[in-house]
Amino acid sequence: MKKVSSLSELGFADDIHRTLFRPIQQAAPPSPTQRRTKISVIGAGNVGMAIAQTILTQDLTDELALVDAKPDKLQGEMLDLQHAAAFLPRTRILASPDYAVTANSDVCIITAGARQIPGETRLNLLQRNLALFKEIVPPLARYSPGTLLLVVSNPVDVLTYIAWKLSGFPPNRVIGSGTNLDSSRFRFLLADHLEVNAQDVQAYMVGEHGDSSVALWSSMSVGGVPILSQLTNDKAVMEQGVLEKIRKAVVESAYEVIRLKGYTSWAIGYSAANLARSLLRDQHRIHPVSLLAKGFYGIPDDREVFLSLPAQLGRSGVLSVANIHLSDEEAARLRRSANTLWELQQKLDL
Amino acid sequence: MKKVSSLSELGFADDIHRTLFRPIQQAAPPSPTQRRTKISVIGAGNVGMAIAQTILTQDLTDELALVDAKPDKLQGEMLDLQHAAAFLPRTRILASPDYAVTANSDVCIITAGARQIPGETRLNLLQRNLALFKEIVPPLARYSPGTLLLVVSNPVDVLTYIAWKLSGFPPNRVIGSGTNLDSSRFRFLLADHLEVNAQDVQAYMVGEHGDSSVALWSSMSVGGVPILSQLTNDKAVMEQGVLEKIRKAVVESAYEVIRLKGYTSWAIGYSAANLARSLLRDQHRIHPVSLLAKGFYGIPDDREVFLSLPAQLGRSGVLSVANIHLSDEEAARLRRSANTLWELQQKLDL
Amino acid sequence: MKKVSSLSELGFADDIHRTLFRPIQQAAPPSPTQRRTKISVIGAGNVGMAIAQTILTQDLTDELALVDAKPDKLQGEMLDLQHAAAFLPRTRILASPDYAVTANSDVCIITAGARQIPGETRLNLLQRNLALFKEIVPPLARYSPGTLLLVVSNPVDVLTYIAWKLSGFPPNRVIGSGTNLDSSRFRFLLADHLEVNAQDVQAYMVGEHGDSSVALWSSMSVGGVPILSQLTNDKAVMEQGVLEKIRKAVVESAYEVIRLKGYTSWAIGYSAANLARSLLRDQHRIHPVSLLAKGFYGIPDDREVFLSLPAQLGRSGVLSVANIHLSDEEAARLRRSANTLWELQQKLDL
Amino acid sequence: MKKVSSLSELGFADDIHRTLFRPIQQAAPPSPTQRRTKISVIGAGNVGMAIAQTILTQDLTDELALVDAKPDKLQGEMLDLQHAAAFLPRTRILASPDYAVTANSDVCIITAGARQIPGETRLNLLQRNLALFKEIVPPLARYSPGTLLLVVSNPVDVLTYIAWKLSGFPPNRVIGSGTNLDSSRFRFLLADHLEVNAQDVQAYMVGEHGDSSVALWSSMSVGGVPILSQLTNDKAVMEQGVLEKIRKAVVESAYEVIRLKGYTSWAIGYSAANLARSLLRDQHRIHPVSLLAKGFYGIPDDREVFLSLPAQLGRSGVLSVANIHLSDEEAARLRRSANTLWELQQKLDL
Repeated sequence: MKKVSSLSELGFADDIHRTLFRPIQQAAPPSPTQRRTKISVIGAGNVGMAIAQTILTQDLTDELALVDAKPDKLQGEMLDLQHAAAFLPRTRILASPDYAVTANSDVCIITAGARQIPGETRLNLLQRNLALFKEIVPPLARYSPGTLLLVVSNPVDVLTYIAWKLSGFPPNRVIGSGTNLDSSRFRFLLADHLEVNAQDVQAYMVGEHGDSSVALWSSMSVGGVPILSQLTNDKAVMEQGVLEKIRKAVVESAYEVIRLKGYTSWAIGYSAANLARSLLRDQHRIHPVSLLAKGFYGIPDDREVFLSLPAQLGRSGVLSVANIHLSDEEAARLRRSANTLWELQQKLDL
Repeated sequence: MKKVSSLSELGFADDIHRTLFRPIQQAAPPSPTQRRTKISVIGAGNVGMAIAQTILTQDLTDELALVDAKPDKLQGEMLDLQHAAAFLPRTRILASPDYAVTANSDVCIITAGARQIPGETRLNLLQRNLALFKEIVPPLARYSPGTLLLVVSNPVDVLTYIAWKLSGFPPNRVIGSGTNLDSSRFRFLLADHLEVNAQDVQAYMVGEHGDSSVALWSSMSVGGVPILSQLTNDKAVMEQGVLEKIRKAVVESAYEVIRLKGYTSWAIGYSAANLARSLLRDQHRIHPVSLLAKGFYGIPDDREVFLSLPAQLGRSGVLSVANIHLSDEEAARLRRSANTLWELQQKLDL
Repeated sequence: MKKVSSLSELGFADDIHRTLFRPIQQAAPPSPTQRRTKISVIGAGNVGMAIAQTILTQDLTDELALVDAKPDKLQGEMLDLQHAAAFLPRTRILASPDYAVTANSDVCIITAGARQIPGETRLNLLQRNLALFKEIVPPLARYSPGTLLLVVSNPVDVLTYIAWKLSGFPPNRVIGSGTNLDSSRFRFLLADHLEVNAQDVQAYMVGEHGDSSVALWSSMSVGGVPILSQLTNDKAVMEQGVLEKIRKAVVESAYEVIRLKGYTSWAIGYSAANLARSLLRDQHRIHPVSLLAKGFYGIPDDREVFLSLPAQLGRSGVLSVANIHLSDEEAARLRRSANTLWELQQKLDL
Repeated sequence: MKKVSSLSELGFADDIHRTLFRPIQQAAPPSPTQRRTKISVIGAGNVGMAIAQTILTQDLTDELALVDAKPDKLQGEMLDLQHAAAFLPRTRILASPDYAVTANSDVCIITAGARQIPGETRLNLLQRNLALFKEIVPPLARYSPGTLLLVVSNPVDVLTYIAWKLSGFPPNRVIGSGTNLDSSRFRFLLADHLEVNAQDVQAYMVGEHGDSSVALWSSMSVGGVPILSQLTNDKAVMEQGVLEKIRKAVVESAYEVIRLKGYTSWAIGYSAANLARSLLRDQHRIHPVSLLAKGFYGIPDDREVFLSLPAQLGRSGVLSVANIHLSDEEAARLRRSANTLWELQQKLDL
């Protein structure tokens, strides 16, 4: 992308670097093995930019590359980030509609996606997103054959499956943001009610991201105190209907933000940056993310679907899946989601 | 503001906190002297939200209050930030169209402002902004009589003067973001050309924010090496015209971002968070900010105008102004800006 | 404390500040309500300095005061920290044998303590520590009547009780570091064995700090998965003897570090800084700390003893105690510790 | 090194990881190209441990390896750091007397060094340090052929030369901490006197680390305001003798800390961590460090000596040297140091 109004074009001495700095003698050129870390973000919309900016503020990487089909918007976003250089540690920020800019990424985060046209069927929308991913994933895989892929675009579970298929990568290197953010919303709701720190609340949403997600009531605890059993011990009544209402409130809180401000951005930005950190910095932390779920909780081995389960993430991607206890009803709901997704995937022209 | 879908309304046991937690005996109630830090941001548009989110990510304060006239947008932005609770240290996030939410702030950041209507005169726009500030500043000063005011809205120099007048505060407690961001853009442009870290580049834009700003060439240095004298020493030619072109490129880079993406947000977000940090954490760092400039560089004592000069900022606001050498031409330009602003201010109905 | 080789003494122009900086006109003097945060550390030994340095690196406070009876050692440690000024955000670092230096602290951390003389009885050692605390606590309480007291010195539970009595503070404002570090050691041991992040391991040591501490097996979980029930579900055998061996290994790991390097410092430094952060930044996080335990788990109301229980900490100190389920045997052990401590305390000349 | 009291030895179920976690299907093994960052610290004394702990607190690396000849001390320090796991992001901490533990480091920091025996000549001490470095440097270079070497041991300039010769590395990959800390002390002294933030003070000590170092008065500035010219402008008198006294006060402040507390640790810890960050995170920042100085300021090309000059540091080590103006007297002092070091080096049995 053309660098607008560079100092060279303005007539500023090109040899000023040579004037201000001199190399030491016998210095060797930079070695390719002395590499820096790199994250690429595909899509410079509200979600992509919230992710990019959060990664920059948290100083997660040495190099940040942005890709978008709209060159003006992309250039504007890149300049807006670069102008903050004096307030941040040095991160090299690149942007281009050409995927070459992503070469040698450690993590590629895909936020691009087609929007639903009024009256459009879910399948038709998915076909259009598939066409989009065919333009995105193969070049990413070609320019960064060892990268991890983190899919944020929706519907995230099917699109993560599509990214896996199109990349040819082993499944541990293809992850969907899935219910990581839903789980944070769940934890916020509980923490706000209990006046505790959300980081002390354990509570997972798993399964399909969206309306059919599953809240894991049995693993819900605060600072190691299981909430439901405590309530039962104290003879407090927690009816099944109340729990389902809470689950729905979590699911609907995303729609609520969209209704109020038009889109969601900040929370998904923090969620994706949080996942990127666990991956890139090999944190071995447990996050509910969308992963290849066949074989878990009775999902048949021939059902190649991605669903969210609590998984340990590190430099190799998905390291393992936590063996959380699900009730029969919860496992059944997971299998139903698996079937729905599988049937949908069969209709795709992959 | 109504809390949507709280757990209480959903039937979740209200006594669960009592069930999970018990107070120790003889505990004293919280003391008002054990206070927490608080920053308020007025205006939940692109600029206000970029500032609020950067402050949150950088964990600058214990409490963050947002005010905007549009309750839906405001509620949506608050929820979007709150949903990230599991990924961040605990910050209490409040939002309301009512200024009572800002009570006891340490720093109030004003980003609200009227937009120019096509064909509108500069004076007319300013009169509308004055009307707006009459609704904003007095309640801020009433709810937080000891707060620092940081004005980001444009035209920043006149609006900072207006905020000072409306607040009745001593002038060291009223600061405009001024040329702090322009200076970062200047430093980025030099750092990018020289392949150095922008934090090692010293370079100030001062004076009036916008087209009439002044670039301080003599204080421009890299890691302690003065750039211009070095160039001269080495017989490199740096014509006056080139320097003016560079200054204009800095000024225009803001317009360029607006042309490309429609507005600026990230860089001003980092700039304001950077100033808030120096103020709240008593950093004594030097930033070019808009301050009461009468008496400096020959500006007459009866010219009560705000212009950007490099100033040391701390918990009491402006601690002092750095005594930077200005050429006669630079000082003259400053005085011209002072006159222009002063005459404009005389026409205001303050 | 005398400032060695200040620039003034060396003949450096005293008016240079006036030369480099000028105040703006009509500036108001700093207001006492615009206060900064302050932490004091009493005792500049290995533990006190590890705490002070960690607090400095983590940028937890605006002002850090050190007190020790040995002026040379103290001055040396202060200078060694101050010399790093160019590498850190600005923190004002003070040091003096005089407690006036701690005035207006938000948190005071006491690490000073007498060492056991070979052949000395535990009671005699305690009497000497009591004498020491009589010199430390009253001046701290006088110079900072609203401060939180965090006791790190050993035996921590009795000394926290003593600090409470000597301060006259409400009990929520007097906290002992207790088993916070033991719990981290417990979590590290489990995390290392399971190859997970220790921050995803929930596991508490509670009760008396030291040989009689209690490991809460039932609340032990990884990422929300209860460990023991999982093992039982899978028919793995976990004998009671094995669990007791693990508890002892945690207790002994402190002795092991002392045997190997002569003392412990880094981990207690991180532990105390972690507590200071939750307190000062009002984090509402849950930590196992030593607190006034009467009335919990059957400890009689007339037994004024401090024992560690998982508690929520914030700007007011202990906010509440988590209602964790203890087995009859665990609760009995707690009561035995309470009795032992109570009887010991009766012999003290308070 | 033997892991003491691991859970396996205590009878804790070895298959618990398999019970709690399951891999996803078709997962690929970790790829060697998906590497993590690694820093090794040689020497677990006060300096080495202050460096290691600061690197850990600042979360600079994914893996930290410690090497020392004393296995007990080393094991104790490793355990003390590991016990803080619950308070820090996950860093893999390794320790061993065997250099194999440093394999694939990005940066190796050498702090080991022989102490002067009373009455020992400087040359004799150096010979003993040379013998020590012959045991340290070749295995470091063998296990991490692409690493950067950062020498902290004293006399740092000669030992950096020795490390360069023993490693066979290009000179840009061998750096001595040199006057980086002296410069911070210089900046603190000025900042403290001027009540400004040390990060806004530009001031370099260069040349030989220790008594013969050179203070660069001409580049001394505060927030871009040159101090000396300002003083001269304002007719303040700054005699040459005063400046030399200030330089000596900086040099002596290290001796002062040693006299007061017995050694220096915290400031050198921050200094080395600061350099490691610029190197590993490719920050392109300018630091005064010891580097191959032949050809600069008239030092003959056949004088292979290391002296401190302000240099830009990045992922490839020394990127370039800033072209700072030296007075004739300053340059002459540099050449004298070069001669002294060169003659000393000729007597070494390299």
